Amino acid sequence: MPAPQKDTLNLVPFVSVDNMMKLILSIGVEEAIEGIAAQIEADFKRWESFDKTPRIASHSKEGVIELMPTSDGEVYGFKYVNGHPKNTKEGLQTVTAFGLLADVYTGYPVLLTEMTILTALRTAATSAVAAKYLAPKNAKVMAMIGNGAQCEFQALAFKRICGIDTVRLFDIDPIATDKAEFNLKDSGLKVVRTSSHQECVSGADIITTCTADKQCATILTDNMVGSGQHINAIGGDCPGKTELHGDILRRSDIFVEYPPQTRIEGEIQQLDPDHPVKELWKVMTGQEEGRTSEGQITLFDSVGFAIEDFSALRYIHDVIKGTPFYDDLDMLADPDEPRDLYGMVRRAEKSLAAAE
Amino acid sequence: MPAPQKDTLNLVPFVSVDNMMKLILSIGVEEAIEGIAAQIEADFKRWESFDKTPRIASHSKEGVIELMPTSDGEVYGFKYVNGHPKNTKEGLQTVTAFGLLADVYTGYPVLLTEMTILTALRTAATSAVAAKYLAPKNAKVMAMIGNGAQCEFQALAFKRICGIDTVRLFDIDPIATDKAEFNLKDSGLKVVRTSSHQECVSGADIITTCTADKQCATILTDNMVGSGQHINAIGGDCPGKTELHGDILRRSDIFVEYPPQTRIEGEIQQLDPDHPVKELWKVMTGQEEGRTSEGQITLFDSVGFAIEDFSALRYIHDVIKGTPFYDDLDMLADPDEPRDLYGMVRRAEKSLAAAE
Repeated sequence: MPAPQKDTLNLVPFVSVDNMMKLILSIGVEEAIEGIAAQIEADFKRWESFDKTPRIASHSKEGVIELMPTSDGEVYGFKYVNGHPKNTKEGLQTVTAFGLLADVYTGYPVLLTEMTILTALRTAATSAVAAKYLAPKNAKVMAMIGNGAQCEFQALAFKRICGIDTVRLFDIDPIATDKAEFNLKDSGLKVVRTSSHQECVSGADIITTCTADKQCATILTDNMVGSGQHINAIGGDCPGKTELHGDILRRSDIFVEYPPQTRIEGEIQQLDPDHPVKELWKVMTGQEEGRTSEGQITLFDSVGFAIEDFSALRYIHDVIKGTPFYDDLDMLADPDEPRDLYGMVRRAEKSLAAAE
Repeated sequence: MPAPQKDTLNLVPFVSVDNMMKLILSIGVEEAIEGIAAQIEADFKRWESFDKTPRIASHSKEGVIELMPTSDGEVYGFKYVNGHPKNTKEGLQTVTAFGLLADVYTGYPVLLTEMTILTALRTAATSAVAAKYLAPKNAKVMAMIGNGAQCEFQALAFKRICGIDTVRLFDIDPIATDKAEFNLKDSGLKVVRTSSHQECVSGADIITTCTADKQCATILTDNMVGSGQHINAIGGDCPGKTELHGDILRRSDIFVEYPPQTRIEGEIQQLDPDHPVKELWKVMTGQEEGRTSEGQITLFDSVGFAIEDFSALRYIHDVIKGTPFYDDLDMLADPDEPRDLYGMVRRAEKSLAAAE
């Protein structure tokens, strides 16, 4: 990250929702996912240079508000994210998020951005990067159970990064499938609509599960999963929220982001706390093996980790340069004389008087 | 907090540095401190309704970046704050901060604001509220050791809330005292410039210490403190940073915000971990005694706690209503159909095309 200029140091680039949409469209959705995926892969490969703490959660009856900070010693980032499953019924987003990057050397923020859209992109990017290491060679068909907000981003990420050419859709709510089918019609993917979980997974090389209820649901039972498939389990991401039957877990090789967090939040909360799992970053660096045989069932038990957000924030920080897709936010007090904060406030009297 | 309207729910009111200055000036600095003090006192009196966690710190060689979250079950707030003592030498603020309030029921943010100025106000407000319970009756004279960014705010807070009429200034850097003397010349306070720590505290009812070096300094030794004085110790606020000689602590009655945090960060890090201290909120609710005799030395070992920021954020959230001193920030994605995030992004193609 280049050193910011003193004369603009107190202004923080802010990417609004509107600007994020324009930025991503100007880059291309698939290209943006690919760029974020490259950053995630690079950051996972230097995993040990990051401060890692489980997210800091504030739970309530209706949902959760979390802060997810991390730092590589030079750059600090955090994401604010809520999870309120009941929001959908009230016409609100289940998950909204924003994020911030700061310069560790000065402590000054260098980017503030919406992260609802960006989280969808980084989640899809992470899934596809994991599948690059874990899915069967030449996987072409993905089953997509749960056709909500993540669905299209997952489909495009797997097309771009893993080369799938067919997506099979199923959701218990056909309206969600209508939406996904419509949105993907010009994506270059063959879109196959199915009418049951069982039908959806039939013939798929990769199964992505991404449903949203905050409860232990079993959307995939053991008999549905065949030899050699890769399961990308996105939806189970907090205590009490899982999607897969325990028997599937027990015959899979399980890969996770950060075991202390996944054991609490992921599918593996159903298993013994010492059930063997492999860390994705170790597969990337060659310290652990990924897929070792054609018949093996691989499972990426994804819950979302702070480093992925950090990678996505870094990507946005890089790509906004020279674009019109951000505003400068006057967020940091910057008196000419740092000790004269009061004098700075008092001198604003002139501009206040002028405004009245 | 009244329920936000659906049609503007995705817009978050943002108070910039410029707007914060104008807002505070339009209210009046002393009135704003008094308003924040009233909110802090009200929130301290319902202390047990808050989630309390020590701040989450990311330390580096140059400083620290912290997140300070809290919630009362209805409203959630956090502050981002850095502490980089070396920044001053580079013409930057030692401390910059911003904060956020969110609605616990939806998880949606309802306020984003600069907090560098606001933190100065809430720190002064907290000190003065504590002194209201702890300082000698009819205190009129405050010694102010350390004439940096906090100085004037402290002086005005103690004038407004505790009724002091004289402030005695000292700083090892006479330029800082020049600044404070100039800024306070029309404050209604009698300002007395002194040339040593010893001269500064002479005859004072209240001693406020507020120096900034990140080291164990001894700016106040035992012989300087006389019977009956109240000490308001602001500057010792992180591990390895203290201002008072241990002997002063040992003959004072010590009052703190939140013991688990103060034992690590405050003056009392110099004492045994079980040295008796009283919690300020218990003094406010009558569960503990504050000042009990004229000769007693009382010490408020202040480090700054998340609830004070929460109170300040609540105050700003209330007072910006109906003013021009905020902007609406497009920070939260709000698709018409919550599950159609991708469709929302794609529909922005029209406005992107229009802009090009």
